[in-house]
Amino acid sequence: MRSNLNKTTMKALVYDGRASLREVPVPVPGPGEALVRVSVAGICKTDIEISKGYMDFRGVLGHEFCGVVEYSPDEALTGKRVVGEINAGCNECPYCRKGLSRHCPHRTVLGIQGRDGAMAEYVTLPVANLLVVPDHVPDEHAVFVEPIAAAVEILEQVHIKPADKVLIIGDGKLGLLISMVMRLSGCDPVLVGRHPEKLAVFSRLGGSALLEAALAEKPEPFDVVVEASGSPLGWELAVGRVKPRGILVLKSTYHGNLNFNAALLVIREITVVGSRCGPFAPALKLLETGLLDPTPLVSGVYGLSDAEEAFRKCGGKGALKVLLRIGEAS
Amino acid sequence: MRSNLNKTTMKALVYDGRASLREVPVPVPGPGEALVRVSVAGICKTDIEISKGYMDFRGVLGHEFCGVVEYSPDEALTGKRVVGEINAGCNECPYCRKGLSRHCPHRTVLGIQGRDGAMAEYVTLPVANLLVVPDHVPDEHAVFVEPIAAAVEILEQVHIKPADKVLIIGDGKLGLLISMVMRLSGCDPVLVGRHPEKLAVFSRLGGSALLEAALAEKPEPFDVVVEASGSPLGWELAVGRVKPRGILVLKSTYHGNLNFNAALLVIREITVVGSRCGPFAPALKLLETGLLDPTPLVSGVYGLSDAEEAFRKCGGKGALKVLLRIGEAS
Repeated sequence: MRSNLNKTTMKALVYDGRASLREVPVPVPGPGEALVRVSVAGICKTDIEISKGYMDFRGVLGHEFCGVVEYSPDEALTGKRVVGEINAGCNECPYCRKGLSRHCPHRTVLGIQGRDGAMAEYVTLPVANLLVVPDHVPDEHAVFVEPIAAAVEILEQVHIKPADKVLIIGDGKLGLLISMVMRLSGCDPVLVGRHPEKLAVFSRLGGSALLEAALAEKPEPFDVVVEASGSPLGWELAVGRVKPRGILVLKSTYHGNLNFNAALLVIREITVVGSRCGPFAPALKLLETGLLDPTPLVSGVYGLSDAEEAFRKCGGKGALKVLLRIGEAS
Repeated sequence: MRSNLNKTTMKALVYDGRASLREVPVPVPGPGEALVRVSVAGICKTDIEISKGYMDFRGVLGHEFCGVVEYSPDEALTGKRVVGEINAGCNECPYCRKGLSRHCPHRTVLGIQGRDGAMAEYVTLPVANLLVVPDHVPDEHAVFVEPIAAAVEILEQVHIKPADKVLIIGDGKLGLLISMVMRLSGCDPVLVGRHPEKLAVFSRLGGSALLEAALAEKPEPFDVVVEASGSPLGWELAVGRVKPRGILVLKSTYHGNLNFNAALLVIREITVVGSRCGPFAPALKLLETGLLDPTPLVSGVYGLSDAEEAFRKCGGKGALKVLLRIGEAS
């Protein structure tokens, strides 16, 4: 490592069966990797699940971040403010060769699988994973690139047409971002959920948001239904409300197994599209142009030393995105 | 009815909680409907399920047939040999207006839902449902149009590319027809099953057919997997063998619920395409041109009076398609 960094240890939120703030060695970038000083990290529902044992992950938590490059083998990047694609592929398999390293069978995933995450003062990632953040996009917006990319992924997979009737199930962070991204395609998506205060985030933008009980008043089936509730009940609702030959986008990963009548998918010829991580560049562009403003999704900003409280806040009632301010604002 | 038919009753295989051959009134065509004298009817797995109570159907069984038009409001059809699309729509809903009467919410379905079927001397269907069979296509081939159309439906829904690696699970009638149709798109599909004698039907055509145990020797994932086994184990195999971002075509309708780890669909971004009935015209064309010859799938031909034995034969070990010869060959 050819950085001028004098520090050898740093603060990091580590999970090893229990999540806690520790003093750990500053990571050493591998070949082709940069060292990034983290400014802000976001807490995602996946982080909360991982901190309960999901994915059997061990190491530094966190995959949503914005930071400043401390060291890079590509010197032009040093000092730049960046976000980073969380999947690091092998660069050799057919997926990596097609630019789909997020499906590389040998991939590591930042803070999720085989790679220390970003809830720390420093993080390493391959230079190829980094995108420079335009100056006028603040850290607190840039940190949303990863979940926005997950929403954008739906548009990569499914042709959403302006006249399509679209239903989004789940008024959490992801459901809201999906709703905000979907409306950009010209359709008027209906967001349905159970939390008036979260639904209000979308209705204040002029979007159509409904409590689940009120959905019964819209009996027409939908061309596209996005299930982002994280609950098997959301799946039931989705199957019941998608039209024959319609598309059901599955964004939720459920605990345990799903138990359902698969014959309905056949008889109605429904297409189910599993959807996970998405492309960072278009997501960043939406922030750069202001077409997507995540400000109303921020429920709180905490210091890294208050990470435990931040996790409690994030997992609590009514909360949307909770951020950790780690380094100085830049 | 302006037919010259002198008969007022006919033999028919009726299900009313129990399937039996009865003497029932010859059906009277409704407005826009033709009366068809049935030459041959095919027994489908669905018929066997219906004769056990599936779909709560009551009436004449059978939806695969070839016959001769006895009476038609369109006189040019009278005397013509025909097959018939089994879904009769309302002609007014958005699906019917798009030519997708097989998804009409008000549809009746021949021998399956609200409409007497074709295991009888006579059957009625809307004239719009009938297709004239070219002279050189024998009854015993034409009767396969419906299940071939169900196989063709996959090509309507999914772009199967010549270089795609395709796996078809299930060596029953449908799995074999799907394999025969799939190879026409230029790919070299692998059919996997548990019955050497059924797999041999496809391998004798030069197709790749494997016992399930031998599939382990092909560790590479498949671009497209078609599940046509009718067993939840087939679903498990399909999910396990489809590549990330691949397509799983679901042709099976399982009894009861499916219980599975839906997170796999999300993490691997698998698309599941439910697939049911298909378009008749292209299926008939495949028979007309000889690109598809169903002869090796015929396991037996019985008279209508031997229908019970025919059903037993069809449901028994090793049998593929069992036909009922009802009227004279034409």
